[in-house]
Amino acid sequence: MNIPQTSFPRIVIIGGGFAGISLAKKLSKQEVQVVLMDKHNYHTFQPLLYQVSTGGLEPDSIAYPIRKILKDFPNFLFRLAHVKEIDTLNNKVLTDIGSLKFDYLVVASGSTTNYFGNKAIKKYSMAMKTIPQALNLRSLILENFEDALLTSDLNERNTLMNFVIVGGGPTGVELAGALAEIKKGILPKDYPDLDTRMAQIHIVQSSACLLKGMSAKASEKAEAFLENLGVNVWKNVRVTDYDGKTVTTNADLTFETATLIWAAGVKGATIKGLHAAELINKGDRLLVNEFNQVTGFNHIFAIGDMACMVTEAFPSGLPMMAQPAIQQGEQLGDNMLKLIEGEAMVPFTYKDKGAMATIGRNKAVVDLSRFRFQGVFAWFVWMFVHLFFLIGFRNRMVVFVNWVYNYVRFDREARLIIRPYKKKHKPKF
Amino acid sequence: MNIPQTSFPRIVIIGGGFAGISLAKKLSKQEVQVVLMDKHNYHTFQPLLYQVSTGGLEPDSIAYPIRKILKDFPNFLFRLAHVKEIDTLNNKVLTDIGSLKFDYLVVASGSTTNYFGNKAIKKYSMAMKTIPQALNLRSLILENFEDALLTSDLNERNTLMNFVIVGGGPTGVELAGALAEIKKGILPKDYPDLDTRMAQIHIVQSSACLLKGMSAKASEKAEAFLENLGVNVWKNVRVTDYDGKTVTTNADLTFETATLIWAAGVKGATIKGLHAAELINKGDRLLVNEFNQVTGFNHIFAIGDMACMVTEAFPSGLPMMAQPAIQQGEQLGDNMLKLIEGEAMVPFTYKDKGAMATIGRNKAVVDLSRFRFQGVFAWFVWMFVHLFFLIGFRNRMVVFVNWVYNYVRFDREARLIIRPYKKKHKPKF
Repeated sequence: MNIPQTSFPRIVIIGGGFAGISLAKKLSKQEVQVVLMDKHNYHTFQPLLYQVSTGGLEPDSIAYPIRKILKDFPNFLFRLAHVKEIDTLNNKVLTDIGSLKFDYLVVASGSTTNYFGNKAIKKYSMAMKTIPQALNLRSLILENFEDALLTSDLNERNTLMNFVIVGGGPTGVELAGALAEIKKGILPKDYPDLDTRMAQIHIVQSSACLLKGMSAKASEKAEAFLENLGVNVWKNVRVTDYDGKTVTTNADLTFETATLIWAAGVKGATIKGLHAAELINKGDRLLVNEFNQVTGFNHIFAIGDMACMVTEAFPSGLPMMAQPAIQQGEQLGDNMLKLIEGEAMVPFTYKDKGAMATIGRNKAVVDLSRFRFQGVFAWFVWMFVHLFFLIGFRNRMVVFVNWVYNYVRFDREARLIIRPYKKKHKPKF
Repeated sequence: MNIPQTSFPRIVIIGGGFAGISLAKKLSKQEVQVVLMDKHNYHTFQPLLYQVSTGGLEPDSIAYPIRKILKDFPNFLFRLAHVKEIDTLNNKVLTDIGSLKFDYLVVASGSTTNYFGNKAIKKYSMAMKTIPQALNLRSLILENFEDALLTSDLNERNTLMNFVIVGGGPTGVELAGALAEIKKGILPKDYPDLDTRMAQIHIVQSSACLLKGMSAKASEKAEAFLENLGVNVWKNVRVTDYDGKTVTTNADLTFETATLIWAAGVKGATIKGLHAAELINKGDRLLVNEFNQVTGFNHIFAIGDMACMVTEAFPSGLPMMAQPAIQQGEQLGDNMLKLIEGEAMVPFTYKDKGAMATIGRNKAVVDLSRFRFQGVFAWFVWMFVHLFFLIGFRNRMVVFVNWVYNYVRFDREARLIIRPYKKKHKPKF
């Protein structure tokens, strides 16, 4: 790889997500050379992907060019690269565009969808972890409605208009709410010649409550909001298989649907050459100590979703969410400079700032450390926080304009099939 | 096709571009059943495609869902369909989703890129007539710069950083200006480790001036603006071939480039079953009379780019631009109602409202019927007119926010490679 040698130590960061970017910002203007690699040339604001899928936002407004984030940082280089392997013996990163030696390595490659080994579900279901995936889902939803118009077979039409979301975490809940609002507000106007009341939205959760990890009140309220919107909430049900048409579960329950959205789990986006933590239930993450050092190494770190940092409050590792990623990135920035200077590093402590989820218009649940609230005010807090964490003034303005418009007009205008998904990928029944 | 029979005559419109949409609006709330078919579910505002290609705008803000345009019109149906053939004997449209009988048919299928029979150019060059094409070009431009970083071969690097635009019409001129501004304002910041001064932008025009059809003053000024921005303008040169790397011309001139953008011509998007006008130089369009009736038919019409309407001022047919399309659509709406009522139709007369093109920041040329001007004021007029003709309040707001931001910040933030183009499509040399 064409990277100039400098007298500064070289830090290679793999991944431009929340963790990698917050680390990079901390390392700006320091006496280090930083090479950030990502397979995309943009940072994705994942919490709003579901709005891209449901036509509420354009993809460009929740993504930000990584080069632009780094442009004022001296000694920073970006490379668009797929990392294939880490050679820990020679301190090298091997990628599709060549290899690169590092003095320090930070793995911030994030997470990927966890299908728990089910190949059929992986093949036929839709994931929503990246912008292309979110756009594929947007296309498929709209294509299904166009196809529903064409058939006179009632079963087939219902199959096309049913949506099954697996996973009752924030992603699943927010998507279910958005689909329910589309069903109510947009479909009847867009498809006057289709009985869109038949469209069904199901959310299936394997445990006893939605939004596990949030308060009982938030969970109950979210469920009530969803049911008010007409979403069918199935708890204590585990989806076991899907053939592209029929969803089977461990209960006496099946669904006929052309669209299964899999939001039931994530796991670390592992890279060859580093062993995943061998502890059970850690989801392919790298076990790190309180300095984010990967077990067995002083100069290789993991942060964000890829890091499994066990604490007293979180015996199976900190949650795979934006907050730990951002906080670890920032702290590691300080710690790496200390390490290079030969000073003692400061152990990471996680400040739990709470969690939130929106269910729809005027409906959200927010758990802060001191306050818990639900409803309209929570919804405004949710919007404010998401606008605040979005990178870039233009993105904030465009998202804000869209939200105001969507709110005032009860609308979502980005319902465009820019690249058709179905004809290429879905099996015919 | 699942279309209910009513007592109203059925008008089938093929195409939801400027022509089809303005006709549809005229036919709303009338005693006719209208079925509009398009292969996309959205209307594209083509004049701003070049801004999508160059990262200035998101695609969703220059597209508008067709169903939403039609939603308040009774007796209107939309079908997402590829029209395969027109059966004029049985008055049927044959599509990929079935066939449909019509009482009246309006062909408004627009135009497609004209490669004048050169298969190599068709294979290796980039077109910019649709949103997916514009996004492919955006990806390729950015991928080329990422690749330029990786090679130490100076020739290869220059090939990757050279851009050749064929065609000096508004599309070519506007794209050349936008690329020049990216070269000047964004590349040096985004690629500090690349000598982006080596990037070259060429525009090649086969005739003696740019913006043929506009005034001599506009043409000269556009050329001066481009040259000021560092664009190489080649006139009286015809590109004859391209193998993915080397562009050959009819002059003693070749270019080495990984990116040839073909904006040198369009032709009608013909449909099997209707004969194209047999006149020469009409570009596969359907010859129509002053009522937009296709030669030989009373009940089959063509409007917009597909229609070749010969007038005294335009002996080879009205220009293939937005204005004739919109005007023909509106007039045909009135005329069809007259025809159905048995009244006499009114011949179409083209009101030439002028033409305009923007070259870059504060630089545009405008020819109105009474006034001609160039420079800053022209640029503001250009922006105002384009905002005005864009469909939808949200789109206008989002485009406006982007333009203000881009202007104030000298920036274009949508430089995202959402779907890589190069690895899939470009040959390796």
